[in-house]
Amino acid sequence: MSSVSIRPMKPRDRTAVEKIVAGVAVFSAGEVDTALELVDEWLDEGEESGYLTYVLEDGDPPAVRGYICFGPTPLTESTWDLYWVAVDPAAQGKGYGQMLLAFAETEVRQRGGRLLLIETASQEAYGATVRFYQRAGYELVSQIRNFYREGDDKLTFAKVIPG
Amino acid sequence: MSSVSIRPMKPRDRTAVEKIVAGVAVFSAGEVDTALELVDEWLDEGEESGYLTYVLEDGDPPAVRGYICFGPTPLTESTWDLYWVAVDPAAQGKGYGQMLLAFAETEVRQRGGRLLLIETASQEAYGATVRFYQRAGYELVSQIRNFYREGDDKLTFAKVIPG
Repeated sequence: MSSVSIRPMKPRDRTAVEKIVAGVAVFSAGEVDTALELVDEWLDEGEESGYLTYVLEDGDPPAVRGYICFGPTPLTESTWDLYWVAVDPAAQGKGYGQMLLAFAETEVRQRGGRLLLIETASQEAYGATVRFYQRAGYELVSQIRNFYREGDDKLTFAKVIPG
Repeated sequence: MSSVSIRPMKPRDRTAVEKIVAGVAVFSAGEVDTALELVDEWLDEGEESGYLTYVLEDGDPPAVRGYICFGPTPLTESTWDLYWVAVDPAAQGKGYGQMLLAFAETEVRQRGGRLLLIETASQEAYGATVRFYQRAGYELVSQIRNFYREGDDKLTFAKVIPG
């Protein structure tokens, strides 16, 4: 029986996380940089950073296969943002993305979160990504046209977290 | 004939801006703090901060009556955010808010901006604030329910800036 675990990201995981983020074809170079900036704030400051970051490992010895980064939305009472979730392309189709999402939802609930939001670009979100969020119970609640660039909208998916 | 001018905010304007922000009844204490954090980043780093901040003065000697803070939206090609606009309650009804908005739009256009967004809380935005934005040609493009807290939605107004 294979084993899978999700735990807080540590400095020694940074190379693996960087490789995963860079390997996800849908992220642009600017997005990869932004994802790593949040990861580094987490490694420097922990929960104070506002960017809670966890990795998923499997195998023996365990190897990092995915990660998730989320945090409380500034100026809100109990809304949280899911900033990034990524799974190594070689480890996709095993439900790791859904496991990471479910894990984040539990953490958010335990910290008093009530609403979890995911923002994404329409040009990235068509197809597999939308189905991924919808399967997890997220609904499209906002679409701002031409936000990222002409023809690339900002989509916001939301899920109410039961108290 | 009275005179009105709009110019970049300087350190000596900080007390006046703080008084104006604190005097606008609709802003919570947390929002006042956030507004001043952006102002301080502008005073420290200038345009590099991403928070362009200008004040409006009138009278002789000139006194600061309002301010506006805006900047490019991260990860977008040519979208800008209007973060804060506030006018001294004692100087309202003179069109200063509309002047500040029009000024910001010109600055955004000159820097290649194409879309200007304003996010606001529904509990603040009803009535005068919505009319203020609509008069300036902004349209409500997104409403995320219960974003700030139960019953307080996030509204986004948008205006396309002609090239």
